[in-house]
Amino acid sequence: MFRPILMLGLLAAFSLPANAENVTHFILPNGLEAIVIEDHRAPVVVQMVWYKAGSADEQRGKSGVAHFLEHLMFKGTDDLAPGELSKVVEANGGSDNAFTSYDYTAYYQRISADRLELVMRMEADRMRDLILSEDDWQTEREVIIEERNQRTDSDPAAIFGEQRRAAQYLNSPYGTPVIGWRHEMEQLTRDDALAWYRRYYAPNNAVLVVAGDVQPDQVKALAEQYYGPLAPTPDLGPRQRAQEPPQLAERRMTFADPRVAQPYVTRSYLAPERDPGDQAQAAALTVLAQVLGGNGATSVLGKALMFGTPKALYVGAGYDGMAIDDTTFNLFVVPAEGVSLQQAEDAMDATLAKFMDEGVDPAQFARIKTQITAGEIYALDQVQGLAQRYGEALASGLTVDDVKGWPDALRAVTEADVMTAAKDVFDRRRAVTGWLSQPAAVEVTQ
Amino acid sequence: MFRPILMLGLLAAFSLPANAENVTHFILPNGLEAIVIEDHRAPVVVQMVWYKAGSADEQRGKSGVAHFLEHLMFKGTDDLAPGELSKVVEANGGSDNAFTSYDYTAYYQRISADRLELVMRMEADRMRDLILSEDDWQTEREVIIEERNQRTDSDPAAIFGEQRRAAQYLNSPYGTPVIGWRHEMEQLTRDDALAWYRRYYAPNNAVLVVAGDVQPDQVKALAEQYYGPLAPTPDLGPRQRAQEPPQLAERRMTFADPRVAQPYVTRSYLAPERDPGDQAQAAALTVLAQVLGGNGATSVLGKALMFGTPKALYVGAGYDGMAIDDTTFNLFVVPAEGVSLQQAEDAMDATLAKFMDEGVDPAQFARIKTQITAGEIYALDQVQGLAQRYGEALASGLTVDDVKGWPDALRAVTEADVMTAAKDVFDRRRAVTGWLSQPAAVEVTQ
Repeated sequence: MFRPILMLGLLAAFSLPANAENVTHFILPNGLEAIVIEDHRAPVVVQMVWYKAGSADEQRGKSGVAHFLEHLMFKGTDDLAPGELSKVVEANGGSDNAFTSYDYTAYYQRISADRLELVMRMEADRMRDLILSEDDWQTEREVIIEERNQRTDSDPAAIFGEQRRAAQYLNSPYGTPVIGWRHEMEQLTRDDALAWYRRYYAPNNAVLVVAGDVQPDQVKALAEQYYGPLAPTPDLGPRQRAQEPPQLAERRMTFADPRVAQPYVTRSYLAPERDPGDQAQAAALTVLAQVLGGNGATSVLGKALMFGTPKALYVGAGYDGMAIDDTTFNLFVVPAEGVSLQQAEDAMDATLAKFMDEGVDPAQFARIKTQITAGEIYALDQVQGLAQRYGEALASGLTVDDVKGWPDALRAVTEADVMTAAKDVFDRRRAVTGWLSQPAAVEVTQ
Repeated sequence: MFRPILMLGLLAAFSLPANAENVTHFILPNGLEAIVIEDHRAPVVVQMVWYKAGSADEQRGKSGVAHFLEHLMFKGTDDLAPGELSKVVEANGGSDNAFTSYDYTAYYQRISADRLELVMRMEADRMRDLILSEDDWQTEREVIIEERNQRTDSDPAAIFGEQRRAAQYLNSPYGTPVIGWRHEMEQLTRDDALAWYRRYYAPNNAVLVVAGDVQPDQVKALAEQYYGPLAPTPDLGPRQRAQEPPQLAERRMTFADPRVAQPYVTRSYLAPERDPGDQAQAAALTVLAQVLGGNGATSVLGKALMFGTPKALYVGAGYDGMAIDDTTFNLFVVPAEGVSLQQAEDAMDATLAKFMDEGVDPAQFARIKTQITAGEIYALDQVQGLAQRYGEALASGLTVDDVKGWPDALRAVTEADVMTAAKDVFDRRRAVTGWLSQPAAVEVTQ
C-alpha cells in the first residue's frame, strides 16, 4: 500500500536480465497478458498483477480514487473475508502488498513456490468479485486521508514536490498527486471506487507477472484456470490522457516552512518518456542523469560543488523514462553551510553551462558504462526487480521487446547522444526551479 | 464570436440599474429561466441566451469544445440554412454575435423591438435543432484554430497570460484557455461538438434575457410559444468543477519573446469569487482594485510609481468576482524607460507594503465612492450592459437578488473592509508573478 518514489527507478534502469530466454510471454483469450520469469535458484515465487489504471487515468475532480481502490482491494470478495487474503499469505510464510502510481496499480505476493496456486486463486478472485460494505469504504477513506497526513502534509519536502509538480504540468494529469488532493479525497464515495474497479479491474486491462521457481507451462495452466474465466471489460478503448501544450515560460517556486531541516534547490525540466520501439533518447537521458548527478560526489555536479570550498552538501540528478506521457529530468543541490540558495543555484547553473560547453569527460563516461554492466550482473539476483521491470513496462505501454532492448539501448548511448539529449532537455522555458527553505530565508507573504 | 476580456467586467461592476422595478423574472415549466428588462426610451430590443456551459465545464483533453460549438451554432438547423440567422438579423437592421467564457456561452441579437418574435423564433430553433454537416464542422475547426493563431499565438502577451493562468491554477479547469490548447483543438470532432450541444444546449440549462422596448407579458407569451415546447436535458445535475487545493508555494514566471514591444510585470493572487447571498468580500476586492490601480495615475500604485522620477509608464489593478470558482486579483506595472523589471516589481511591492501599513487614504476612498455613484447613473443608458450583467450573473450561479444587491454591497464597503480583503488576498503563496520581456532582458534557455 505504498507509493513508489519515482526516482527509485533510476537504479533499476541500470540492472537488467542477463538471460532473456528465461522470459515467457502469453496472452489469454480474455485479454490477460502474462509474463513468466524463471529463476530456479530459490524455491520462491512472486506473483504480481498490474492494472493499466493509475492516478493519471482519474477524472479531474476525483483524484485519489486509484489509490483508494488499491486499499479497498484488501477488503473481501464473495469467497474471501475482509483481510483474509493477506492473512492467508502470511500464514503460509509469504508477504504481500500493493502500490499505486500515475500509470498503474499493482498487487503482489512473495511466497513459497508451491503456494502459487493459492495466491493466484485469491488474486483472480478479487479481480472481479470485490465486495465493499458501507463500513469498509468509509473506514478506508479515513485511512488514506491519514496516509496523506503522514506522507505529504507532515513533510514540507513532499508538500513542495506536490506544488512543483502541479506547476510543472500545465495540462497533463501528471500534475495531480497520486495520493489525491485532500479536498477531493474527502469526497470520494463507494460509487466512485466501484465505478473505477468495474472499469479497470479486468483481465483485458491487466498484466500478470509470475517470477521465480516455476515452469511456464504450469503458470499458463494455472492462469487459464483462475484468470481465464474472468470477463473482460467491453469497449475499454485506448488510454487517452490530456497532453501538455508547449511550455513557453520559465517557472520558479519558493516554499518556506518552519519544519524544513535542510533547504535545497531543485530544477525539473519536462522531458520525453520511453516510447515503444523508440528508447534511444530516454536511454541518453538516463545516462545523462548518471553523468551529472549519479553517485553524488563523482558526478559532474558533485565534482564541481562538493569539493574544495564546497558549495553543496549533496547534489543529485534523476530521470525515469518509464511513463506514458512526458516526464521530467530533475536536478537538486543541497547547499553547504553558509551558502545561500541563490548561490547554490548559480553554482549549479554555472556547472551546467560549463558541461554544455566542454562535453562529457571520457574517463567518467567509461566508468558509467562499467556501472551499467555491473548493474546487469547485480540484476540477476533480483527476481522481484525483474518482475517489477516487466510489469511496470507492460502496464506503461511498452512491450517485452522494449524491456529486452533497454540494456542495448543504454549500451549504445554515445557521448554525443548524451550532449544532444542535454541540449534538447535543458530548456528553461519548460523548467520549474524550486527553493525549499525555512521562513527566515525567503519572504513568502506580502 | 469574440471572447470577452475578463477585466472589462471591472467597469461594469460600478454601473447598475437605478430602477430595479423594471426587471421581471420568470421560469418556464421546462426550466428556462428568463429576465425581462424594460427600457422604453428607444424602440430596440436585445435578446440574449446564456448557456450554463463554458470552457471550465469541458472534459480534460477536450479543451476548446465550448467555443467550437459557439461557432457551429451559426450553421443551419432543420428550419434555417447555414448562416441564415445572421443574414436575416442583418436584413432586418439588426446585429448579432456570441461569446464564450469559462462559465458560460452566450448569443445575442440587437434589433428593432417589433422584430423580437423573429429573433426569438430563430434562437429557439437553434437551441435544440442544430444540424452539422461534415463540411461545416471541419471548416469551422480551421476557423477556430486560425482564431487561436491570431488572438493568442501571434501575441506574446496572450501566450504569457495563458501560461501564467495554467500555473496559477493547480487543479481548477480555469487554468485551461477558453479558446483551447491547440493540440486538443486539432483533435475536436463533430461528435465532441454534438455531445456538448445535446447535453448543455437545453432550456433547463439556459437563461433568456430580453431587454429594451418590450412588455414582460408580451415577452413571456413569446417565450412560452417558442422556447416552451423545447425538451429539457434529463439528469443534468449540478455543475461540478475540480477545486483548487491549498496553494502553498509562491510562483514566478518569465517569458521572453522578440515580439514584445513593452515589457511588464504582473502579479496575480488567487481570490474568492462572488457567491450567491455572500458578496461582501468580492465587493471589497472590487473597491480595492479601484483604490490600488483604478484610473491609473490617481490610484495608490499610480501616485507612487508614475510621478516624480517615474518608475512606471502605467499601472493597473483588476478584479472580476463574476465566476463560479476561485478567481484572481491582478496587478501590473509597465516600467518607465530605463527601469528594469526587477526595479518595477520592487517598487510595486514597496508601494503595496506601504499601503498595507498606512491604509486607505480617506480622500481617495471618498472619490471612489463618488465614481461608483457616477457609474450607476451611466448604467441607466446601457440597456445592453444591464442585459449582460443579469445574464452573466444568472449563468454564473448568482441570483436576481445578488445582481440587485450588488450596488448596495459596493456602497457598504468600508475602508476597514478594503484593508481586511487586502490582507486576505495578498498572500504570495497563492500568487504568480510574471515578467514579460524581450529575450535580451531575461535569459530563458539553459
